[in-house]
Amino acid sequence: MEGQAYIDPNETRKRVEVCFSPYLFPLYKEEFEIIVVIDVLRATSAICAAFHYGVKEIIPVSTVEEAQEYQRRGFLVGAERGGQIVDGFNFGNSPYAYMVPEVKDQTVVLTTTNGTKAINLAKECGQVVIGALSNLEVLQNWLAKQDKNILCLCSGWQNKFNLEDTICAGAICDHLLGTGKFHSVEDASIAAKYLFLSAKDNILGYLKASSHRRRLKNLNLNIDIKYCLNPNQAPVIPILQGDKLVAIEADVLI
Amino acid sequence: MEGQAYIDPNETRKRVEVCFSPYLFPLYKEEFEIIVVIDVLRATSAICAAFHYGVKEIIPVSTVEEAQEYQRRGFLVGAERGGQIVDGFNFGNSPYAYMVPEVKDQTVVLTTTNGTKAINLAKECGQVVIGALSNLEVLQNWLAKQDKNILCLCSGWQNKFNLEDTICAGAICDHLLGTGKFHSVEDASIAAKYLFLSAKDNILGYLKASSHRRRLKNLNLNIDIKYCLNPNQAPVIPILQGDKLVAIEADVLI
Repeated sequence: MEGQAYIDPNETRKRVEVCFSPYLFPLYKEEFEIIVVIDVLRATSAICAAFHYGVKEIIPVSTVEEAQEYQRRGFLVGAERGGQIVDGFNFGNSPYAYMVPEVKDQTVVLTTTNGTKAINLAKECGQVVIGALSNLEVLQNWLAKQDKNILCLCSGWQNKFNLEDTICAGAICDHLLGTGKFHSVEDASIAAKYLFLSAKDNILGYLKASSHRRRLKNLNLNIDIKYCLNPNQAPVIPILQGDKLVAIEADVLI
Repeated sequence: MEGQAYIDPNETRKRVEVCFSPYLFPLYKEEFEIIVVIDVLRATSAICAAFHYGVKEIIPVSTVEEAQEYQRRGFLVGAERGGQIVDGFNFGNSPYAYMVPEVKDQTVVLTTTNGTKAINLAKECGQVVIGALSNLEVLQNWLAKQDKNILCLCSGWQNKFNLEDTICAGAICDHLLGTGKFHSVEDASIAAKYLFLSAKDNILGYLKASSHRRRLKNLNLNIDIKYCLNPNQAPVIPILQGDKLVAIEADVLI
């Protein structure tokens, strides 16, 4: 595809776009004020679940070593690599691990294969907000009220495109474009929206063809998958303040 | 998305996958024996048109400087940047420029914004074949007979995803998967196939929403776009031999 970017000089709407993986993020990072980090299976779904069940704050760290250091200092720490709990830690990436009384009002430290890396990549470039299917509607409504350029950053899989994050990003685009206050100029955003529209009536069925199923089905994660793909189970908006994720106060969400 | 790649030890079928842009190619290049380079608007469509109208061979070069050097030596040279013919050259990227008697039996040198760069990137890693909607059916049939792992490399736009190359790649995946002799393990390939299936009954209409239209409509390229998006206008298979593209002999295509 050739040609210059076509920028309409009369365009006043804000942009909403989709970046398919952290690997592509260098092509986008200068242009956006809000970055929605999405890792549906399972990091951002687990983060939303944790806040919905009353966790006070979450510190996302990129490496297991950082997580171990926090653990030595007495923090509750979750650590996941390759779909499993890292040896020596109490939690992994399962949303259900955070639906327990022990996390209520606590600070939790979390490191995951893709999701927390994407958060730490994005935070240099804009306001990080956590997106998942589990907080979709409340997030869409909040984003629609922000007069900001928005990038949905899919965590992907091993730096490549994945379907479930893209469908979540497409749902956000579809909603924001529908308000009339946003526009998209890139084909990735249009494709994400098309894929969401094809999937929306049966997300679980749609993704049965996808590679996540082959990867996770032998990890006995079917219960987690069903939770993560079921929209609006955790109506919270985790947002990064400094190095900590906190939930936006409920009265702001109305 | 977490988890390890799930490789079925009993899998004997070859793989067909899609890489959305040259920027992502480092994540793929070790694994494939045939690389189908796709730049529907307009480089690979123009290359197919040229062979269909009798050009003998095409030398793809990455830079305008290389193209100028060939021009000094008396070659016919096409050079396109940003959708337009580079000053001082006779041809650009329009398929119609190559449907003329002057190119018959000639060697043509070509440099384009994305397409020829993708060719030169891919040639280090596998057998390069040229793909476009204009040679779709003949290419699908030929690929189905190769017992090789196949990567469709979309040229994209400024290293990002574009819809028209992805739909072409999705058409190739859909056909090869349908033969039962190939499988895909990556979500990018599944998404490309889904997008093709949504688009196939009206590719021109489907792409009206896409960014290519905004970019090219003010370059008066509507005639070219219609040609490039109309399948099977140029039933040839250009293939790289050394540094030159040549057409596979017609009797091999039957």
